[in-house]
Amino acid sequence: MTDPDLAPEVALAAGLFDALRAASLDLPGVTRASFGPGEAAAHALVAEAARHAGLEASCDAVGTLRMVLPGRDRNLPAVAIGSHLDSVPHGGNFDGAAGVIMGLAAAAHRARRGLQGARDLLVLGIRAEEMCWFPAHYLGSRAALGLLPRDAPDTLRRADTGRTLADHMAEQGLDPAPIRTGQATLGREQIAAFLEPHIEQGPALVAAGLPVAVVTGIRGSLRYPRATVLGEYAHAGAVPRAHRRDAALAAVALIAALDARWQRLEEEGADLVVTAGILATDPAHHAPTKIPGHLSFSLDIRSEDAGLLAETDSWLHEEAARLEAARGVRFDFGPATHAAPARMDPGLRAVLREAASRAGVPVREMASGAGHDCATFAGLGIPSAMLFLRNAHGSHNPEEAMEMADFAAGLAVLSGALEALLA
Amino acid sequence: MTDPDLAPEVALAAGLFDALRAASLDLPGVTRASFGPGEAAAHALVAEAARHAGLEASCDAVGTLRMVLPGRDRNLPAVAIGSHLDSVPHGGNFDGAAGVIMGLAAAAHRARRGLQGARDLLVLGIRAEEMCWFPAHYLGSRAALGLLPRDAPDTLRRADTGRTLADHMAEQGLDPAPIRTGQATLGREQIAAFLEPHIEQGPALVAAGLPVAVVTGIRGSLRYPRATVLGEYAHAGAVPRAHRRDAALAAVALIAALDARWQRLEEEGADLVVTAGILATDPAHHAPTKIPGHLSFSLDIRSEDAGLLAETDSWLHEEAARLEAARGVRFDFGPATHAAPARMDPGLRAVLREAASRAGVPVREMASGAGHDCATFAGLGIPSAMLFLRNAHGSHNPEEAMEMADFAAGLAVLSGALEALLA
Repeated sequence: MTDPDLAPEVALAAGLFDALRAASLDLPGVTRASFGPGEAAAHALVAEAARHAGLEASCDAVGTLRMVLPGRDRNLPAVAIGSHLDSVPHGGNFDGAAGVIMGLAAAAHRARRGLQGARDLLVLGIRAEEMCWFPAHYLGSRAALGLLPRDAPDTLRRADTGRTLADHMAEQGLDPAPIRTGQATLGREQIAAFLEPHIEQGPALVAAGLPVAVVTGIRGSLRYPRATVLGEYAHAGAVPRAHRRDAALAAVALIAALDARWQRLEEEGADLVVTAGILATDPAHHAPTKIPGHLSFSLDIRSEDAGLLAETDSWLHEEAARLEAARGVRFDFGPATHAAPARMDPGLRAVLREAASRAGVPVREMASGAGHDCATFAGLGIPSAMLFLRNAHGSHNPEEAMEMADFAAGLAVLSGALEALLA
Repeated sequence: MTDPDLAPEVALAAGLFDALRAASLDLPGVTRASFGPGEAAAHALVAEAARHAGLEASCDAVGTLRMVLPGRDRNLPAVAIGSHLDSVPHGGNFDGAAGVIMGLAAAAHRARRGLQGARDLLVLGIRAEEMCWFPAHYLGSRAALGLLPRDAPDTLRRADTGRTLADHMAEQGLDPAPIRTGQATLGREQIAAFLEPHIEQGPALVAAGLPVAVVTGIRGSLRYPRATVLGEYAHAGAVPRAHRRDAALAAVALIAALDARWQRLEEEGADLVVTAGILATDPAHHAPTKIPGHLSFSLDIRSEDAGLLAETDSWLHEEAARLEAARGVRFDFGPATHAAPARMDPGLRAVLREAASRAGVPVREMASGAGHDCATFAGLGIPSAMLFLRNAHGSHNPEEAMEMADFAAGLAVLSGALEALLA
């Protein structure tokens, strides 16, 4: 299935993945902390490979690596390909890096063949996407696009060091000043389209036996990370059903009803996933022979459909009110976080599907349940799209397993799309 | 409602409750550890009051306080009234003590009026009923009746001190030898009937506006204190419903189905209570954005009906197997404990109901959801019955609140029953 013409770039990518792994090894897995040494090593390796392939490579004030294959008219907005180069601690080698390296491979391929586009091809190595380091979504892409709060350099602290973003940026020779003044280092008017290849973080492509997917949208989320139910502790044997104020059974009833609603909506074709990641009676007070008076839980509800998220939120509060009346408990959902769904551009999705068809790569379309830098670009109205690459064992763990044959299939699709977009 | 003739014994009881509280005060509440100083002080106070009222009072080798009002034929088995004198740490003043003091008050009343029965009236101050001290059900009554395992004195250790039962008994001048040789200090052939008055540990009498209940039976229990569900941790957004192995949603589905079954059975008139006192994803791994791969839970299921407990156990395992197949998880119920229900004697229940009717005390009948020493006597085939006394705020806490007017109503019922049983 691999286009033999792409073989040198697939080999380049394989070598880069090996070098990246070696430079950030932290067994088990790799660690490339946002604005830390592993991420810096990755940026240096990729920049060097880009220059070697004949691209211009530079780093902006906030650390974004820009690798450019110039087009005929340098004043036109560029077609950009990118992803991030940081990782979670003891993570896998491909989450983020696969997209940057695929962009670089596609550009190197065009450079090697002497293909000049109508406009620039811009490959981006974005900083700081993994939220485990700094508590902010899409930190690096929002910094580059001028979307971070101005106090971010001084208020955001890295989880492992407790030091500020400004401090960590300075340590890497970078400058937080553009963030403090709200300036973009990457203007949205400079980008005509944004493409992000990324490993799939779920099992859908492995299950479907397909190497690549075109992403329909990035699910938005409604999240209650710290919800509680308050009931009353009492003797497990001595209190009749009608007199119980059982926090656990009330939470179970709410979550079971949400699960049933999810199942029904999915059967009707709606896009939704629901997770109660935390469910916990209080270890200081719970016992098998006590009716639980308190329970903590979290809810994470995601959909491509903003309307469905809003409806589900209303339903949730109505159902909780009904259970409060029926079961003598109080629900406190605590703070909510909302992330809007990001729609992928229909035109770009069509370009990717057609390129796949021409390359003989079978694809499917699917939603992305995880957030990606692409959502930042799409949120600014930049036409954006994503390619998912088949990957076993999920992500954010050392067992991530993308096969180079699937990378090659994705590269064939991406290269075909660039022919159409840069013509 | 109080029979004026019982006023001196109600006053005696009120004084004894006050003295007991003062002797075991451990704010908030009282502490009368099994084979500890608070329990010993209670035994001494009650024995002294019994002798003062004209009863014989003695302590057997394992610490049971026996207070006897002799009958005409001392060779006949006695009618016994009793309960325990220990408490949980920082507990209330009435759980256990109310039954011993009511027995003493009833005997004192008969002694004062010179009523001699056909047989002995035996009031028992039982040791060590609260399981928080030694990990054994009904330790004191089983010790007296020769039912403890012979190694109990040397293998059971008190939770607060870590010292053995033998050690704590010796400290109180008691002798573990009868336990080690399997001898009863109280032969079942010595007891014709056993009556245990006890505060209600739930809210049913407060809700019903009734001072006293006749207990129909002591619920048996089926308990899984350490059950788990094993699934697979994965990304909350990226894994579609069909591929999830969500431990929390599987547990929620099982418990919600059990709750629904309970509601249906209760509507059909069956006796059942269900508690999931512990429900906990793993704090070392859980997060709002992770599908939970593991969940611990407990189940405590109680009923007067042994058949219903067995049916519920079968149903539970079938439902779990169905969920395992549907949701890709594994349930491990862990060790089970079973306690058989104890039926209260229909003849004694009738005697108590008739005595209540004669005394003008409105009563209801109800099951006991908590275990009581009475179950040990009933388990040996001794005709046994219980009276519950209205009590606000549950038990095992300093807010226990039995009113002396309700104690007086219970005493009127008990005294009337003794007239019938000792005639």
